[in-house]
Amino acid sequence: MSHPISRYPVPDIDDLPDDLRETVSAVLEKTGFVPNVFLALAHRPDELRAFLTYHDALMERDSGLTKAEREMIVVATSARNQCQYCVIAHGAILRIRTRNPQLADQLASNYRKADISPRQLTMLDFAIKVASQAEAIDEQDFTRLREAGFDDDDIWDIGAISAFFGLSNRLVNMSSMRTNDEFYLMGRVPREK
Amino acid sequence: MSHPISRYPVPDIDDLPDDLRETVSAVLEKTGFVPNVFLALAHRPDELRAFLTYHDALMERDSGLTKAEREMIVVATSARNQCQYCVIAHGAILRIRTRNPQLADQLASNYRKADISPRQLTMLDFAIKVASQAEAIDEQDFTRLREAGFDDDDIWDIGAISAFFGLSNRLVNMSSMRTNDEFYLMGRVPREK
Amino acid sequence: MSHPISRYPVPDIDDLPDDLRETVSAVLEKTGFVPNVFLALAHRPDELRAFLTYHDALMERDSGLTKAEREMIVVATSARNQCQYCVIAHGAILRIRTRNPQLADQLASNYRKADISPRQLTMLDFAIKVASQAEAIDEQDFTRLREAGFDDDDIWDIGAISAFFGLSNRLVNMSSMRTNDEFYLMGRVPREK
Amino acid sequence: MSHPISRYPVPDIDDLPDDLRETVSAVLEKTGFVPNVFLALAHRPDELRAFLTYHDALMERDSGLTKAEREMIVVATSARNQCQYCVIAHGAILRIRTRNPQLADQLASNYRKADISPRQLTMLDFAIKVASQAEAIDEQDFTRLREAGFDDDDIWDIGAISAFFGLSNRLVNMSSMRTNDEFYLMGRVPREK
Amino acid sequence: MSHPISRYPVPDIDDLPDDLRETVSAVLEKTGFVPNVFLALAHRPDELRAFLTYHDALMERDSGLTKAEREMIVVATSARNQCQYCVIAHGAILRIRTRNPQLADQLASNYRKADISPRQLTMLDFAIKVASQAEAIDEQDFTRLREAGFDDDDIWDIGAISAFFGLSNRLVNMSSMRTNDEFYLMGRVPREK
Amino acid sequence: MSHPISRYPVPDIDDLPDDLRETVSAVLEKTGFVPNVFLALAHRPDELRAFLTYHDALMERDSGLTKAEREMIVVATSARNQCQYCVIAHGAILRIRTRNPQLADQLASNYRKADISPRQLTMLDFAIKVASQAEAIDEQDFTRLREAGFDDDDIWDIGAISAFFGLSNRLVNMSSMRTNDEFYLMGRVPREK
Repeated sequence: MSHPISRYPVPDIDDLPDDLRETVSAVLEKTGFVPNVFLALAHRPDELRAFLTYHDALMERDSGLTKAEREMIVVATSARNQCQYCVIAHGAILRIRTRNPQLADQLASNYRKADISPRQLTMLDFAIKVASQAEAIDEQDFTRLREAGFDDDDIWDIGAISAFFGLSNRLVNMSSMRTNDEFYLMGRVPREK
Repeated sequence: MSHPISRYPVPDIDDLPDDLRETVSAVLEKTGFVPNVFLALAHRPDELRAFLTYHDALMERDSGLTKAEREMIVVATSARNQCQYCVIAHGAILRIRTRNPQLADQLASNYRKADISPRQLTMLDFAIKVASQAEAIDEQDFTRLREAGFDDDDIWDIGAISAFFGLSNRLVNMSSMRTNDEFYLMGRVPREK
Repeated sequence: MSHPISRYPVPDIDDLPDDLRETVSAVLEKTGFVPNVFLALAHRPDELRAFLTYHDALMERDSGLTKAEREMIVVATSARNQCQYCVIAHGAILRIRTRNPQLADQLASNYRKADISPRQLTMLDFAIKVASQAEAIDEQDFTRLREAGFDDDDIWDIGAISAFFGLSNRLVNMSSMRTNDEFYLMGRVPREK
Repeated sequence: MSHPISRYPVPDIDDLPDDLRETVSAVLEKTGFVPNVFLALAHRPDELRAFLTYHDALMERDSGLTKAEREMIVVATSARNQCQYCVIAHGAILRIRTRNPQLADQLASNYRKADISPRQLTMLDFAIKVASQAEAIDEQDFTRLREAGFDDDDIWDIGAISAFFGLSNRLVNMSSMRTNDEFYLMGRVPREK
Repeated sequence: MSHPISRYPVPDIDDLPDDLRETVSAVLEKTGFVPNVFLALAHRPDELRAFLTYHDALMERDSGLTKAEREMIVVATSARNQCQYCVIAHGAILRIRTRNPQLADQLASNYRKADISPRQLTMLDFAIKVASQAEAIDEQDFTRLREAGFDDDDIWDIGAISAFFGLSNRLVNMSSMRTNDEFYLMGRVPREK
Repeated sequence: MSHPISRYPVPDIDDLPDDLRETVSAVLEKTGFVPNVFLALAHRPDELRAFLTYHDALMERDSGLTKAEREMIVVATSARNQCQYCVIAHGAILRIRTRNPQLADQLASNYRKADISPRQLTMLDFAIKVASQAEAIDEQDFTRLREAGFDDDDIWDIGAISAFFGLSNRLVNMSSMRTNDEFYLMGRVPREK
């Protein structure tokens, strides 16, 4: 009862425009496989380019949030939005970044009960408010975040990552995007020395 | 009791990176003013670039949806997300595109009661489902849309525009982005000959 | 794709009972047109009479709330209840009362981000709670309102206006009541001297 | 831990304006006690007059709905809105009208499981939609009601009663209106002959 | 339009396994009738046994909560879950336990407005949070309960009773379990001396 | 930032009553560790006994549902209720039962997009309705399930498992029950031959 990568056409890597073929090939080389999101959005090359640029602008920039914290936001937000691809794929990335094989599964089921610091809980509370009730964000939210040690730039990162993955989550659910097999086990088994 | 353009720093046009200064100057020349979204996101130039590219990829492409229909999606989705800037600014654009001074206000208050075709109502029902319950999108939604005359590429446009403006709506609410005065009256008063 | 004034029969002014014909004629004389609500409820003369009496008892009485503040409550509540007629018609009245052409559109999209005082925000928070969660109103709500300067009589006005327009909003949505063309532009264009 | 009749001032019958004193005295004579709603709204005589007129216009008119059916709508709607006074007081009236000592309690806890006809279930489904999601009422709702045997005038009654008691429910919750002791047992014990 | 005891088969007492027949006969002897829950769950004897054992473990144990308080939790939780059988049957038990003929109806319609102590209101707020939003229970909830005088064992009782009757409420709604006639009037009429 | 097994006291196995010590020891012997639920509920031996008996009555009985399907219900319901322990522990059991290392993670994030049959999707739709909206279950739900091949006994199993784990989920969230480390990796790595 397995389903395809997407309701939408999925091009071969060789049929991608040159720049995207290069991007995807580089990912393939580095990771060993091509995450389906690259292929599932490629029927719209312009949108894929903007998506990847936006993603990297948020996830690769210098930030007061660690890369692991940013992945925590992705996993918690995507769980709230019931996005299978993002929960599983970014759960894998979070395991890699933290070398913690449990945190992603904890965040995916109930972030309030995960093994995180109070500061990180405040961070995720805000991310979830952006995802589910952004219209009601007010000065008190900013005060709470500042008291937890975040500056305004960090707060932007939290909210913008939640908002960007809200977009991603909706595209995944709309297209029934399938998760790559590789993500499920990634980062779960300790490397032997 | 008026509030500033954004909680976040708003740069002068002259302080923008060259490419963004050119983009913004071109908008200013064409429109007569700079919509606040350009300035309110400019404290993050990389994100602004990706935002604008993504926006244009969806809103300027050849599509089975007219430009007016795409703005209808923006207004209805943004109303659902309680995004003041997008409802008012894109309401103005919708008035311009349709030369209909009423439609935007109708969509903003209750899209189900607006002067639109049954096909357009089906379109907006899907946009709102993407905005509010994307996890439950299923084959029946696609069937209903196809029966209303949309092909899969049109459906992608509907959903992706709703998803993209869901991102935009969240950034606006997070930053308390202020709407330019110019949008309120735009397209409301019939031009004299 | 325009729709009629109501699903229900809409009588001619001349066919109204004498007292209602007088009331409506007076409105016509003063305003220059007959707001559709008078005609759309007139198939039930007794209910219309009670509706108008109740409306005036709340909206015309001496109150600690200005008439403009009462219209703010109507617009915010009606937006919450997705009532097209009330948002647009009372938005027009609010523009007239405040000579502010922007406030109604701000309240209609997200009252929390409108150009209002902290006192008025407290007022609207309560109005929205009455509209959406009246069962949970408690002593803390009254304390917050008193701290913002409202006395118990003012609080009654806030809640009762929200409750009364909740009734009105439901009748409008049930009958698909159409908004008069005249309301859309009213109070938007500054008078020339 | 009993609480007073209302947060708001409750006048003596003798202090009421003449017309209201007459109305209330007539109720007292007929019923043997004064339902608290008369006293709890009397601090606003104009509003009370409009309230009572509106109530009677809906509940006393000739209608395709029996008086018992109208009370069913009141009980189900008031339960949905968590209005203690209306559930208990109109539950009593429903028992009187139907000589059925169980129906009110059934409707108050889950109207879908009450001993009612399929036609009455359709009626209550619509009343609850008016109470909770009036913005989404559409042609399908009217079709379903017509198929169950209701004409458009009956449908107005269903919706208007739900909407009017939505107003009443909110006033009760806002004022913490207390239910009279008399209502609890009324209609529960079969009369001996 | 009365409906049967359950969608599911309802055995005769004589056809029950010996242990259950004894249990049910004892109830019949003591109470004068067999509450339908015993018969409606009896098509699954193992589940019924576990259900009864669990019920008694919570409701009969020595506890910091009085038996009446435990029934308050049952009534408020079951009202929230719209469980007709539990609201009416346990409402009757609550009337017996408190000799207060009003409290159950008050709790069933809006527990926040019932004649209970502040401590009991805190208790019911927690029970309702367990029923509707258990994922968000946090240290603040425990602090509030402790400040109201509950120790951790009491808190467990509150939450576990709410959770157990959440199970019961779902079985009732799934099987459309009918309430016995006897419960409606029980405890309402003061005993004569 | 790891947290303890429970907010509540967690006894040593040796301190358990004899029957529970035997039960727990048997589990330990078979599984190699003691799932925390046994210890976290053991401060209430009577409740734990009832809990285990009820669990086994549902999960071990002969049923038209396979044991794997029953675990699917547990995982989907527990995800809906945001129960970390149950999602992760029963996800592990589901992997064991199905030898499918992916299905549990799919169900936990969005059961509608999992690799399951249409029949199983119907099963889970009902389980989720029992968990979130049991008051609205009606004849149509039963019809849909029967059309998918379930008989009334199977439907009871689906609903009762969802209801029982709703109880379990609430106890876990109330006590902040910690998931055993062992569950995370269980059934993920294919056995070598």
